Amino acid sequence: MKKAQKARKIKKVTAPRKRKMGTVGGKTLVLDEVLRCCLAARKASLILAGSSVKDRNRALESMADLLEKKKDDIIFKNGIDVEAAQETGLSPALIDRLTLNEERLRGMAEGLREMAKLPDPIGEIESDWTRPNGLRVQKVRVPLGVIGMIYESRPNVTVDSAGLCLKSGNAVVLRGGREAIDTNGALVSVIREAIASSGLPSDSVQFISTPDREAIRELVGLDRVVDLVIPRGGEEMVRAIRQMATVPVLSHGKGLCSVYVDKTVDVEMAVRIAFNSKVQRPGVCNAMETLLVHKDIAAAFLPRIAERYKAAQVEVRGDEETRRLIGSWVKPATDDDWDTEFLGLIAAVKVVRDAAEAIHHINRHGSHHSDSIVTDDSAAADLFLREVDSAAVFHNASTRLHDGSVFGLGAEMGISTQKLHARGTMGVRELTTTKYVVRGRGHIRE
Amino acid sequence: MKKAQKARKIKKVTAPRKRKMGTVGGKTLVLDEVLRCCLAARKASLILAGSSVKDRNRALESMADLLEKKKDDIIFKNGIDVEAAQETGLSPALIDRLTLNEERLRGMAEGLREMAKLPDPIGEIESDWTRPNGLRVQKVRVPLGVIGMIYESRPNVTVDSAGLCLKSGNAVVLRGGREAIDTNGALVSVIREAIASSGLPSDSVQFISTPDREAIRELVGLDRVVDLVIPRGGEEMVRAIRQMATVPVLSHGKGLCSVYVDKTVDVEMAVRIAFNSKVQRPGVCNAMETLLVHKDIAAAFLPRIAERYKAAQVEVRGDEETRRLIGSWVKPATDDDWDTEFLGLIAAVKVVRDAAEAIHHINRHGSHHSDSIVTDDSAAADLFLREVDSAAVFHNASTRLHDGSVFGLGAEMGISTQKLHARGTMGVRELTTTKYVVRGRGHIRE
Repeated sequence: MKKAQKARKIKKVTAPRKRKMGTVGGKTLVLDEVLRCCLAARKASLILAGSSVKDRNRALESMADLLEKKKDDIIFKNGIDVEAAQETGLSPALIDRLTLNEERLRGMAEGLREMAKLPDPIGEIESDWTRPNGLRVQKVRVPLGVIGMIYESRPNVTVDSAGLCLKSGNAVVLRGGREAIDTNGALVSVIREAIASSGLPSDSVQFISTPDREAIRELVGLDRVVDLVIPRGGEEMVRAIRQMATVPVLSHGKGLCSVYVDKTVDVEMAVRIAFNSKVQRPGVCNAMETLLVHKDIAAAFLPRIAERYKAAQVEVRGDEETRRLIGSWVKPATDDDWDTEFLGLIAAVKVVRDAAEAIHHINRHGSHHSDSIVTDDSAAADLFLREVDSAAVFHNASTRLHDGSVFGLGAEMGISTQKLHARGTMGVRELTTTKYVVRGRGHIRE
Repeated sequence: MKKAQKARKIKKVTAPRKRKMGTVGGKTLVLDEVLRCCLAARKASLILAGSSVKDRNRALESMADLLEKKKDDIIFKNGIDVEAAQETGLSPALIDRLTLNEERLRGMAEGLREMAKLPDPIGEIESDWTRPNGLRVQKVRVPLGVIGMIYESRPNVTVDSAGLCLKSGNAVVLRGGREAIDTNGALVSVIREAIASSGLPSDSVQFISTPDREAIRELVGLDRVVDLVIPRGGEEMVRAIRQMATVPVLSHGKGLCSVYVDKTVDVEMAVRIAFNSKVQRPGVCNAMETLLVHKDIAAAFLPRIAERYKAAQVEVRGDEETRRLIGSWVKPATDDDWDTEFLGLIAAVKVVRDAAEAIHHINRHGSHHSDSIVTDDSAAADLFLREVDSAAVFHNASTRLHDGSVFGLGAEMGISTQKLHARGTMGVRELTTTKYVVRGRGHIRE
């Protein structure tokens, strides 16, 4: 469908009296499901935008209660997905991500109860001033409207997204992975029931049930209806969505993070931070991939961290100097290693001349996510914190700390490495925007 | 060039020792000019990010002084463009926009001096808190980095953009219209000289001089080097850039603005606001296109405003009720009229049942830019201000007041109707982002 045609179609169906849908037959049916979901979400979003935080928090608590109450139904439906996944030969790791049990459901419910306790950004007055002529200008925080979530197998994303969107006064259209389709259907039906019982529109949470991939293309092209699309998944998926989308996209960024150990350091602390950044959970975005070490501390520091890495089965890939200092079990690092997010127990290690070289290396090879300096020298720390162009920069702390709940901001939807709108950990606040509310007494432009 | 290839090429030339450019011959030359400009800007941006506001303000004042001092040179170069434009038969209106004289140059210089007085957003600490475990988290305002500006004939955009970007600590790559190429070249050379004289890098302001359109495609695709692209121009141009760009785009939005005159109003005030919104400067984005009138006030209000519009030669296109009340000189409004930004002395007028219908009409047909309600009823005002989903909503004030300097925010780059990052009037602050600066004492993730 051409853009102009589509715009007309949307305009047409947006008009209540002219609505005309449900054409039967393959693709049209998919498109209609997506459009119908998005339009229903749009309608609900207008009611949500005017709702009280009390109602929204009550809905979150009802969601939590009902998830626990209906746990058997949900686990039963999840069993269908898990069985199908086993039949199709999904990897054990992916099957584990897909599987729900009582404990995981309790975790989701607790997450929702925590969200209910978070401060409400909606209606917050960012600034408020009166011009000399008496015109009063306020910048007020408001919901975005309708958010599309596209994600892969983990079913907790269904609950987290519905919760975060509701908390921030937005309607959401969910499009989960096909492996979790029965699980997600069951979760959404519980969520909608809970929302309705709190007096808010159940249409606030929509679920696209078709496994047809065409649905994604349709969803990310509805820029007159959907305000934001958030893809959560692999790099390939995010890139494909960015290329297709006319709706703005906010996404979790790839994490190629570094720790730089400066000349003057508490070696004990440096070892603790370099070890934690790499090993505590190596498969996530804020884990360290590259360790940079000042040449003057390398002899004292490298053998110590190498011993810890070796014991934890971390494969070390080092430059020449690193290999000379640690020993022959270290593999030589290739050019590509400096640009690779290993997402596993591998660390690339390099000896550098000074902080300036470390900063240059990070800005060139890193993914502008989370980078840390370990140093006792406050001038070096300030230089690093200022010049490293990343979403979060750390001094004497592990890169693993870049996280919404560690920062005390509550649940996060991921960590953005883009610079516009949201940079770093993204929570409830990043799902909002502002509008100017201006009050006059007959003011005109002279 | 494919994306992966391009990424490699950029990576290659970003590395200081590997730089290799200047291949001669047609297209390659254009691409190299763009890439060279952007890389030079990137390098300058790192210095700007660490510069003091004192230096940046001094540079703005030097720019102002030097523009006035070199006015004769600039006006001479402008004459070349104007002559060429006359020969190619550019419309008198466009030639007027292109023409510089002493007064206009003085206006630009004054604009720069005003910018120097604006508060500095860079380094501002948005929030600062310490977690129970002693981890200190700050959210600090920082420049975006490198901004690409693509614009059409008005040469003052060259000076305004260079000034706003410098004020906010960003380097800028300018790509003006080919009609103004000599003028812009002269302005940029003065600007660069002034910046250098203030001790900041002259490379902070780059100018792409080739008239080849391929340069635009190249510029908006350099997402590893350029952080933001701002197109200023017609709707077509902005749409084309949005489609081509992999760099994020921030743009001035189309303005289809409405005034709604409610049941209980001071008719005098309503006439003043509806007249000012339409007539004071009809060709701009925040001028009113559609006037909505409550049925109970229509008989008292419509003939009054009609008389004023008629005297000002505004063509009125009305619905049936409007035509009945005003008279036969009113043309019947077509369906398209509600969706048209006239940008001239035309007003579409409609009588509505109530505020709810007005809000629905505006959300459906408007461009989410600037909309106003005139009413004495505070409940109706609150409903309108809350439910109209626009960048700025007004009560008892003209839509024409949506403007950075009217709001007291200083120079603006335009008004955004998008919801992400910048909504409404965009000034210096919208050219910045934030980063998390986190300080620990050996903190790790447990």
